[in-house]
Amino acid sequence: MTMNKNEILEKCKYYCDWKQDYSYIVSIFNFDKETIAPRGANEESDKALARIQQDIFKVLKSDDYINYVKEAYEKRNEFDEAHRRLFEFQYKEYIRNINISPELQYENSLLLGKSYSDWLNAKEKGDYNLYEPTFRKVVEMSRKLIELRDNKFATYYDMLLDDFEPGNNEVILDKFFSELKEGILPIIKKINASKQPRKDFLSYEVPIPLQERMSEFLLKFNGFDTNCGVLSTTEHPFTDFPSEHDIRVTTHYYLDMFTSNIYSVIHEGGHAIFGQNIPHELFALGLGDFITSAEHETISRFYENYIGRNKNYVYHLYNKTNEICGDIFKDVSFDEFYKGINIAEPSLIRTESDELTYCIHILIRYELEKDLINGKISTQGLNLEWNRKYKEYLGVEPKNDSEGILQDVHWTGAAFGYFPSYALGNAYGAMILNKMKEDIDFDKALLDGDLEKIKNWLKDKVFSIAPLKDPNEWIKAITGKDFSTKDYINYLHEKFSKLYKF
Amino acid sequence: MTMNKNEILEKCKYYCDWKQDYSYIVSIFNFDKETIAPRGANEESDKALARIQQDIFKVLKSDDYINYVKEAYEKRNEFDEAHRRLFEFQYKEYIRNINISPELQYENSLLLGKSYSDWLNAKEKGDYNLYEPTFRKVVEMSRKLIELRDNKFATYYDMLLDDFEPGNNEVILDKFFSELKEGILPIIKKINASKQPRKDFLSYEVPIPLQERMSEFLLKFNGFDTNCGVLSTTEHPFTDFPSEHDIRVTTHYYLDMFTSNIYSVIHEGGHAIFGQNIPHELFALGLGDFITSAEHETISRFYENYIGRNKNYVYHLYNKTNEICGDIFKDVSFDEFYKGINIAEPSLIRTESDELTYCIHILIRYELEKDLINGKISTQGLNLEWNRKYKEYLGVEPKNDSEGILQDVHWTGAAFGYFPSYALGNAYGAMILNKMKEDIDFDKALLDGDLEKIKNWLKDKVFSIAPLKDPNEWIKAITGKDFSTKDYINYLHEKFSKLYKF
Repeated sequence: MTMNKNEILEKCKYYCDWKQDYSYIVSIFNFDKETIAPRGANEESDKALARIQQDIFKVLKSDDYINYVKEAYEKRNEFDEAHRRLFEFQYKEYIRNINISPELQYENSLLLGKSYSDWLNAKEKGDYNLYEPTFRKVVEMSRKLIELRDNKFATYYDMLLDDFEPGNNEVILDKFFSELKEGILPIIKKINASKQPRKDFLSYEVPIPLQERMSEFLLKFNGFDTNCGVLSTTEHPFTDFPSEHDIRVTTHYYLDMFTSNIYSVIHEGGHAIFGQNIPHELFALGLGDFITSAEHETISRFYENYIGRNKNYVYHLYNKTNEICGDIFKDVSFDEFYKGINIAEPSLIRTESDELTYCIHILIRYELEKDLINGKISTQGLNLEWNRKYKEYLGVEPKNDSEGILQDVHWTGAAFGYFPSYALGNAYGAMILNKMKEDIDFDKALLDGDLEKIKNWLKDKVFSIAPLKDPNEWIKAITGKDFSTKDYINYLHEKFSKLYKF
Repeated sequence: MTMNKNEILEKCKYYCDWKQDYSYIVSIFNFDKETIAPRGANEESDKALARIQQDIFKVLKSDDYINYVKEAYEKRNEFDEAHRRLFEFQYKEYIRNINISPELQYENSLLLGKSYSDWLNAKEKGDYNLYEPTFRKVVEMSRKLIELRDNKFATYYDMLLDDFEPGNNEVILDKFFSELKEGILPIIKKINASKQPRKDFLSYEVPIPLQERMSEFLLKFNGFDTNCGVLSTTEHPFTDFPSEHDIRVTTHYYLDMFTSNIYSVIHEGGHAIFGQNIPHELFALGLGDFITSAEHETISRFYENYIGRNKNYVYHLYNKTNEICGDIFKDVSFDEFYKGINIAEPSLIRTESDELTYCIHILIRYELEKDLINGKISTQGLNLEWNRKYKEYLGVEPKNDSEGILQDVHWTGAAFGYFPSYALGNAYGAMILNKMKEDIDFDKALLDGDLEKIKNWLKDKVFSIAPLKDPNEWIKAITGKDFSTKDYINYLHEKFSKLYKF
């Protein structure tokens, strides 16, 4: 059935509202499951989730929806940029789903539900082999879903990269990671040969209620709108975007690792601030959902590192920590605090790792997931391969799989292709930082505690256009330059040579 | 289309599973809204909830579902007791919905969402007039929904009573409440003329983390299964039953009113223990949803009062409180503690009120909601009428509407007809208590801290048959007697004459 422009806009609005309502409900159900739901109900909640996701999927496979998507895509040039982009996304999604039946989609949902429970259980016991049988099925299912698609890509993994970061592929990322490796490993070597800063106080015990006050302070200080968001706790911190005025940050408190919460909150808060500052008209079209993971990680890691580990920011952190914690850190000078927080030291846990070695953690995951999805390696013994790479690249080795292959949630949910986003985000962020410094006095804004100034610049130049651009176009639009790792490597070199005096 | 027995069973299973999945999702969304969701998203969440409820409603109005319900109801005598009861409920629900359109249902959902937000806001400001315009619409909508039904009842309110407590009506309840009034008011009078126990320690400050430990202890002690349940905080404590293995209790912490949390947790925990001990085969048919509110309040108030305020139970409470709170209550003897906890004193807040005056709070609500729904009084000035009744019956008067008409959430959600359940529950509970004492040594079980023994008796004699019986049949099946207020009034008289020595 042919539709005119108005009919298309009407259907578009109907389906955007419909999607917003249902994705709000599904997000909350998921969020609840990952934060407070009792374990005893896992089977019931997986089943409920699989059903609602299947019912949603059936709508996406309905004649009415598909007719609208095809018509809108065909006539996309008659519409404004935002609608055009939405129609392109919707068409891409339609193509992706063509050969996937609602039954298969249901099966996949159930599998991912079980995968999450089995992973949590295995992680608690530190034993990958408890999870491996389920994980194998997750990988098989991912490959099966790829095979059902109209494959115009060089490799299976390329297809997933196109989902996460349109415009990227293995060739580009191999080069990207090899530049990172060449840039970062020599710095690590130099640091290992240098005098190490004091770090004992990083494991001083800080009672959870005090850490909670710290979280509250940081979210507000950085510009998170608490009237339109929530902070909860979870095993593995994440940010959810259930609805325009409901954006949720999570953290995890460790009694003897107070910086873990601090940098989780700053990182996740960065995601949330990004989400809270998408122009309403783009949000209403659901374009917020199409911001890529690297675009998102750019901002979260921008807040975590370029802001959060900057000396002038750490100054506020130091004062506030002392204000809240009383005497706990009375024997720690600001200089020690700053250097301790910026320690660069090969370690096992990605989320706790420092700014410098972080990308090596990602590199390891990239190499493994690429081979896994391309069918070059299997899930069996993958924990040992993981440990081998940690030994090779970082010189450290996990004692059990909880601090090894089971530490991250991503693969559990079949989010293969997500990890590179973190490294790309770091590199995008360095380019954005240099551009920002042309416009505003970044260090002074931090010293003044004027995070609003920084947020407003980001909102104007970075957030507002993210839903409309693929990552490479986005970076070019912001900085005027093509993407490169140069700014990032320079930043690391400069920062750490100063800190470690080499 | 005619269906045979197997076809009916197959459809029955399909729709039970479907209902379970969707009601799980909707429950969690509601639970989230009432516990942590940010206010800024109220409009979005009301809209999402109204949509999913409408979509569920559309299924209930579909030819396929209605055909099944009619066939199943017609052939109900060919099935076992549980199926027969389910088919009767489903048929009753179908009849109730005949003249209600999905559009009206959507409008009602949106209105109740707004009602909740507006109530919260007005409650915070202590001003009923801020809420009255919305509340008026809620009452109007309730009356409209009643008018659309096939009214075989004497009054509007009778129809709602039949929803909540089948078999009850105004005539029965007028008599019930007048017996309560006659039984209770003289005891209150005698108490007012007696020496009052010490009560200063009831407002000693207890830090929230200590109160949280108390909650944990009490839930476990009473027999709540934490692997299949959750404790959260909210403005107005309630219990939710999202799924068979996911039953949720909420509480509210006040720094200077530690017993508020204790009795909220015991009360809500009672609801939850009931829910967690429904036979699986009845739960699977969704019959748990049809336990009446009075049946539920029987158990929650049984735990709160007959157990929770019993001297032998308070003995454990006293010891645990001292263990957790250190020196806070060091100047309070056990006797003072027990008497303080059992103080009977006219007050303003129903949920904080004592065991004796409680039913008078309910009486006031009953009189008001009956007249409101029957169209005899309007929402305008209802706060003043509320205050007048408090003055008349209890001799106390609210300073503002937060401690007056705005204190409870029930009317906000159009749950008119619910309040009598609390009073009925008290009276049912007294009959059950006497029956239980014939079988087990109740006081000794409490002294031994053997709550398991009590729970098992309840599970066997009370919980297991609740989904299959209307309240009056239920009480008769448990106790062998017809319902009367005698046991309850005797219990109150005996307990309070001993406490206050009259």
